[in-house]
Amino acid sequence: MNINENFLTLQKNYLFSEVQKRKEAYLKKHPDADVISLGIGDVTLPLAPVVIEAMHHGVDEMADKKSFHGYGEEQGYLFLRDAIRKYYEKKNVTLENAEIFISDGAKSDLGNMLDIFSIDNTIIIPDPVYPVYVDINQMAGRKIIFIHGTKENGFLPMPQEDLNGDIVYLCSPNNPTGAAYNRKQLQAWVDWANDHSAIIFYDAAYEAFLTQAYPSSIYEIEGAKQCAIEFCSLSKTAGFTGVRCGYTIVPLALEKDHVLLHDLWLRRQSTKFNGVSYIVQRGAQAVFTPVGQQQIQEAITYYLENTEMITKTLKDLGIWHIGGKISPYIWMACPKGFTSWEFFDYLLDKCQIVGTPGAGFGKQGEGYFRLSAFQDHDKVYEAMLRMIAHLGF
Amino acid sequence: MNINENFLTLQKNYLFSEVQKRKEAYLKKHPDADVISLGIGDVTLPLAPVVIEAMHHGVDEMADKKSFHGYGEEQGYLFLRDAIRKYYEKKNVTLENAEIFISDGAKSDLGNMLDIFSIDNTIIIPDPVYPVYVDINQMAGRKIIFIHGTKENGFLPMPQEDLNGDIVYLCSPNNPTGAAYNRKQLQAWVDWANDHSAIIFYDAAYEAFLTQAYPSSIYEIEGAKQCAIEFCSLSKTAGFTGVRCGYTIVPLALEKDHVLLHDLWLRRQSTKFNGVSYIVQRGAQAVFTPVGQQQIQEAITYYLENTEMITKTLKDLGIWHIGGKISPYIWMACPKGFTSWEFFDYLLDKCQIVGTPGAGFGKQGEGYFRLSAFQDHDKVYEAMLRMIAHLGF
Repeated sequence: MNINENFLTLQKNYLFSEVQKRKEAYLKKHPDADVISLGIGDVTLPLAPVVIEAMHHGVDEMADKKSFHGYGEEQGYLFLRDAIRKYYEKKNVTLENAEIFISDGAKSDLGNMLDIFSIDNTIIIPDPVYPVYVDINQMAGRKIIFIHGTKENGFLPMPQEDLNGDIVYLCSPNNPTGAAYNRKQLQAWVDWANDHSAIIFYDAAYEAFLTQAYPSSIYEIEGAKQCAIEFCSLSKTAGFTGVRCGYTIVPLALEKDHVLLHDLWLRRQSTKFNGVSYIVQRGAQAVFTPVGQQQIQEAITYYLENTEMITKTLKDLGIWHIGGKISPYIWMACPKGFTSWEFFDYLLDKCQIVGTPGAGFGKQGEGYFRLSAFQDHDKVYEAMLRMIAHLGF
Repeated sequence: MNINENFLTLQKNYLFSEVQKRKEAYLKKHPDADVISLGIGDVTLPLAPVVIEAMHHGVDEMADKKSFHGYGEEQGYLFLRDAIRKYYEKKNVTLENAEIFISDGAKSDLGNMLDIFSIDNTIIIPDPVYPVYVDINQMAGRKIIFIHGTKENGFLPMPQEDLNGDIVYLCSPNNPTGAAYNRKQLQAWVDWANDHSAIIFYDAAYEAFLTQAYPSSIYEIEGAKQCAIEFCSLSKTAGFTGVRCGYTIVPLALEKDHVLLHDLWLRRQSTKFNGVSYIVQRGAQAVFTPVGQQQIQEAITYYLENTEMITKTLKDLGIWHIGGKISPYIWMACPKGFTSWEFFDYLLDKCQIVGTPGAGFGKQGEGYFRLSAFQDHDKVYEAMLRMIAHLGF
């Protein structure tokens, strides 16, 4: 028996494990420290009441033989796929229910989707980026080309004339930078993909934070159904990080030599997946009701108020930053010439704040730092006071 | 962009989709037919009260900021892993919590586990077999060797002297045949694996149906921790087919050139998976309480009463069969010289009974047929009356 040797090429510590490790080490030395986490992007507000109600009802159904649900469709229940289809209608995107696949989160499908593609494909990945994109491709031994996000391009790399590759990962609004592509920029990516017979893996996990000035689905862009797969999640949209539900759109128009990618993905899912918990799908359905949409908007507004506090503080401190406003993340330059991990340690030591070092998201992230707005108002406020005290000049 | 061409080598219809299609076609022609399904192995009894209670409590926790759960450990909550560790203690199997990984079902992990192994490994698969084992390896382009289950070996193939391969799938009690390996037979497999540096993928999804005469975990066998990964699920154990929870054991003793398979799997899971729903894990935990164990046993007993009805009928009809008693499946020879699919159509047409054709589980399954005991007593009773009426001589 041989192992997959590609695993040995991976960096040993996954970014957030390392963050956690350093935080725990600090707490061991300073057990009374009031550490505030603006690190990992995990929600803090409870689920919307309408979701809770729907899941209680779902649990009750499972208690009675008449309403019990065993295996569901691997692709997801029609009631949920139909709710998502209608959600897209409001974006003026017309989908068929068959194009919608319910997942246990974007992360799973972003990795699993690679199963249906040749391992000889070349992958284009922006740098800095959500580290999972890199790791999942490295695990499979795929060739990766990095395109650079920089201060100059607003951390929104665009396709250059000589860019060649088969699959490109785009995330908008972006994790970690909080930057979002506008319509014109996304159109350029879609045109590039169609010209190059490439596929866009579009990670829309943070779409709920966007204003209407930005496309919140790649299918708002002409030609996208011929070249893009969209991954979305209720993790950040509706606080589902512990509930686990997302969805993936594989358009029926996506094909290669008359083979529908949709059919391959359906085959993959029905063979390697047994669908998402019925109870969870009932909860997810509630998110898309009018009341659900209103309730989740309150949470999103709450987190965006945090980004306002953070960006105002950074502005006052004269620290370069982007993100916030249309994203739960703020991407800041490390002050005082610190590297990312130096600043991590400094911020933890001086301010008892945990953030995420930009270098963890790629080489271009060195010298930058991600702050997450998923936290309580009063804790963010306290964190900002500490930053002003220690980073003011 | 190129697709994974291995997908094009797969049979177009997944077995149970084809069964469903033929059933639907029949119902379209005979809309008033009272079709009884003894086909797909899906449970029919509702969840145990203790599981319902635990999930309601879990939902309530998610409604309150103080008890809300966001991201959990990708490996699963410690409360559940610890409950499973104690469950194994009763089998005299000592595990560490670190060796237990919570999954959304055995099917997912049986496929995903392959990620950590080289695609150059040769896979040994019994025939007949759960078709997923074959498809997931064919998708990745792995070489497959089939070993034959026959009437002569009781559909329990054993390792022959000249058998060489890297990974072998064993399922006991078996799907589809209901046959289970005894201690001596499993010891022979473990010895063979250790002698050949091979890995056993042990699918224990139906272990809860076994009597104490059979090992219900491969780790009851000496040397198994050096060569086996065990996959289990609450789908059949506790009616979780629609709830989605299972677990996978990767012993810390499993290694290849000092690389722990455990570490590779942990890396795989933390990169490509975000864990199982908190609510579901609370429900699963309840299964392992004393009350939970008692309540699920009632359901298992109920299903085993169905197998008694079925095996008694087949015996009376003089039809060769194995399984039942220690398994929810009965594996019968097709009467009257029918092929598997011919018998499927015959049984549907004459008796309005849906079963699963043996040929769908592999070439050696031709001429055999699987009946599932996951059904209501009165329906099984009615089905047996019909079989006696049409298959009696």
